[in-house]
Amino acid sequence: MNNFIYDIPVRVYFGKGQIEHLGEELKKYGERVLLVYGGGSIKKNGLYGAVASEIKDAGLELSELSGVDPNPKIHSIREGQKLCKEKKIDMVLAVGGGSVIDCAKVVAAAACVDFDPWDFLGKGVPIEKALPVISVLTIAATGSEMDNCAVISNPDTEDKIAISSSHMVPRASFLDPTYTYTVNRYQTACGAADILSHVFEIYFAKERSLYMVECFMEGLMKTVIRYAPVALREPDNYEARANLMWASSWAINGFIEYGKNVTWICHPLEHELSALYDITHGLGLAILTPRWMEYCLDETTAERFRQFGVNVLGIEKDLAPMEAAKKSIEMLSDFLFHTLGLSRTLTEIGIDDRNIKAMAEKICSGRTLPMESLKPLMQEDIEAIYRMCL
Amino acid sequence: MNNFIYDIPVRVYFGKGQIEHLGEELKKYGERVLLVYGGGSIKKNGLYGAVASEIKDAGLELSELSGVDPNPKIHSIREGQKLCKEKKIDMVLAVGGGSVIDCAKVVAAAACVDFDPWDFLGKGVPIEKALPVISVLTIAATGSEMDNCAVISNPDTEDKIAISSSHMVPRASFLDPTYTYTVNRYQTACGAADILSHVFEIYFAKERSLYMVECFMEGLMKTVIRYAPVALREPDNYEARANLMWASSWAINGFIEYGKNVTWICHPLEHELSALYDITHGLGLAILTPRWMEYCLDETTAERFRQFGVNVLGIEKDLAPMEAAKKSIEMLSDFLFHTLGLSRTLTEIGIDDRNIKAMAEKICSGRTLPMESLKPLMQEDIEAIYRMCL
Repeated sequence: MNNFIYDIPVRVYFGKGQIEHLGEELKKYGERVLLVYGGGSIKKNGLYGAVASEIKDAGLELSELSGVDPNPKIHSIREGQKLCKEKKIDMVLAVGGGSVIDCAKVVAAAACVDFDPWDFLGKGVPIEKALPVISVLTIAATGSEMDNCAVISNPDTEDKIAISSSHMVPRASFLDPTYTYTVNRYQTACGAADILSHVFEIYFAKERSLYMVECFMEGLMKTVIRYAPVALREPDNYEARANLMWASSWAINGFIEYGKNVTWICHPLEHELSALYDITHGLGLAILTPRWMEYCLDETTAERFRQFGVNVLGIEKDLAPMEAAKKSIEMLSDFLFHTLGLSRTLTEIGIDDRNIKAMAEKICSGRTLPMESLKPLMQEDIEAIYRMCL
Repeated sequence: MNNFIYDIPVRVYFGKGQIEHLGEELKKYGERVLLVYGGGSIKKNGLYGAVASEIKDAGLELSELSGVDPNPKIHSIREGQKLCKEKKIDMVLAVGGGSVIDCAKVVAAAACVDFDPWDFLGKGVPIEKALPVISVLTIAATGSEMDNCAVISNPDTEDKIAISSSHMVPRASFLDPTYTYTVNRYQTACGAADILSHVFEIYFAKERSLYMVECFMEGLMKTVIRYAPVALREPDNYEARANLMWASSWAINGFIEYGKNVTWICHPLEHELSALYDITHGLGLAILTPRWMEYCLDETTAERFRQFGVNVLGIEKDLAPMEAAKKSIEMLSDFLFHTLGLSRTLTEIGIDDRNIKAMAEKICSGRTLPMESLKPLMQEDIEAIYRMCL
């Protein structure tokens, strides 16, 4: 393991009704709030009203950036940048899921510069400061509520790019599991697949983790596998929603990745898919992951998948590694495609092979190859994995 | 589960050689450093020199409070308070184990008041501010490097009292596993018992935890049980020392206790023992814990001990709960008294029954009884547990 600096300064208000602390939290950061949200579901379920009251009762001034899309687009960031400057915004409050929080993070950075915010993504201009970001989470999935990362799409260039900066880490996040009661079956399932994928990227990286951290990762995976089906059956089961919500944060807040060199694999493959086809991120990950595992499976990697099977899925300890590995991948597929009910192939969701080469090229351009997955990947390997998903 | 606010703002520099960042970290907090340490082992192993160089190279002014005892005493706090005022100290740097860090925390609070620091402990005067505390850890045990707590003894009154305050949480802690290579067999074993006990207090509390957190706790316990014996056999095994060190922090930094009402049991029982007899905290906990488990074991609690056995110790899933529970307690005893080689009884370490009643009375005075353990405990139950330890 490598040295690392642990630093997760987010304050998390966890539980039912914690929104009552929102006003006092926001007052720490100034007077003028930019509220960022999506398509208006928070107006239907009453959350918008609760947030607006907190802001009003705290004597703060409210501006709004609404209509943030899933796979948030650069035009929202530009609009937010303009609003922040016009209204002299002091802090950015995201109320929504990962897309809304990601958008708020980059708006907070864009508010502090005079250039076009796509430069952060397309040109890699580093983020040197940002307004304080606060989030109120409405879906357990991306973990954006507790991490330093954002992913923004540019439809003009068909790019979807991830950036990270410690300046974008939310100062505080409000995690009330009851806000996720209204998340529908499909989005609950995609969220669960997304959480699992965050753990897989690290758990199955070539380098091993500290044993303690491997145990924690196994706990996160067991939690999702146990409680996602409960949330599908009983959308208002508090225990299930609370477990999924807290797991979503811990899968990606940095804790399980510290001390390890990880090359994420399924995420960049998925980003190309959703950049081109605007599919739900968790769905793309669900389709890709078991195929990537199958592609990597050989005598040298079987033990890693066996460990997953034994410690997470509860398969027998005494199977031969290859047999155990195959069984693990099969059980994971069964979980994703039967229990969660997600589509198994790209073909099922209307995606054919015509852009596979271009997507693989885009992933590989500017990278040192091979990608250090369990099995090292060159461009042709990535194309092969996409083809297995058809 | 209850609502909670997650807030662990400690910055942890983890890994070999991280001390090179000490100077830059200290400079954030001012110019005058009070270095707190124990009996001088850090002078023998070179750590004192490394710390002093960092302070000097950063252009900071060094004062010292040395000779802090195991089970740190109030006279050290008083001495530190005086030094802080005389030298206009800006920050307190603890270099040592839990005793040294606990002492530094309370000195940091005492520096900000004009009354006698025992008032924080004996009279419960709340801590309203403290100088910044930074720690360099030299033994994996108490977790003081990442928590808000300190335990101070007063030989005059035979009191040993724990206090907590968010102001005492270290701003930064340096966790270099190689500093624990020289920790001897006995202290390594006591440290392991201490870490396990922190998890037990929460894992076996009457109220259940969030499933995800139960998985994390099981991971912490598996880590200690797997790596403490390795550290005993190979004191300079980096992986073993790193796992134990990181586990010590996560057992008590608050994460596993959030959202749960916990009445700690073995800790207050042990505090009375070490207040009177000045024994090593981890040893006292090792003697008490299996006896407390046996005392609590009945048809209503067996399932909890069975879960521990199956998920942590790897016992068979199909044993009847009572049989499984007994086996779990037996295996834990075997781990503590054979594998770790700790003394099994109070008699072995020269403690007889003469103070049992007085200790139990002291624990119960000022508390609402029964203590909400797995089995509710009145004063006579506590006396009975002490007697089982003879």
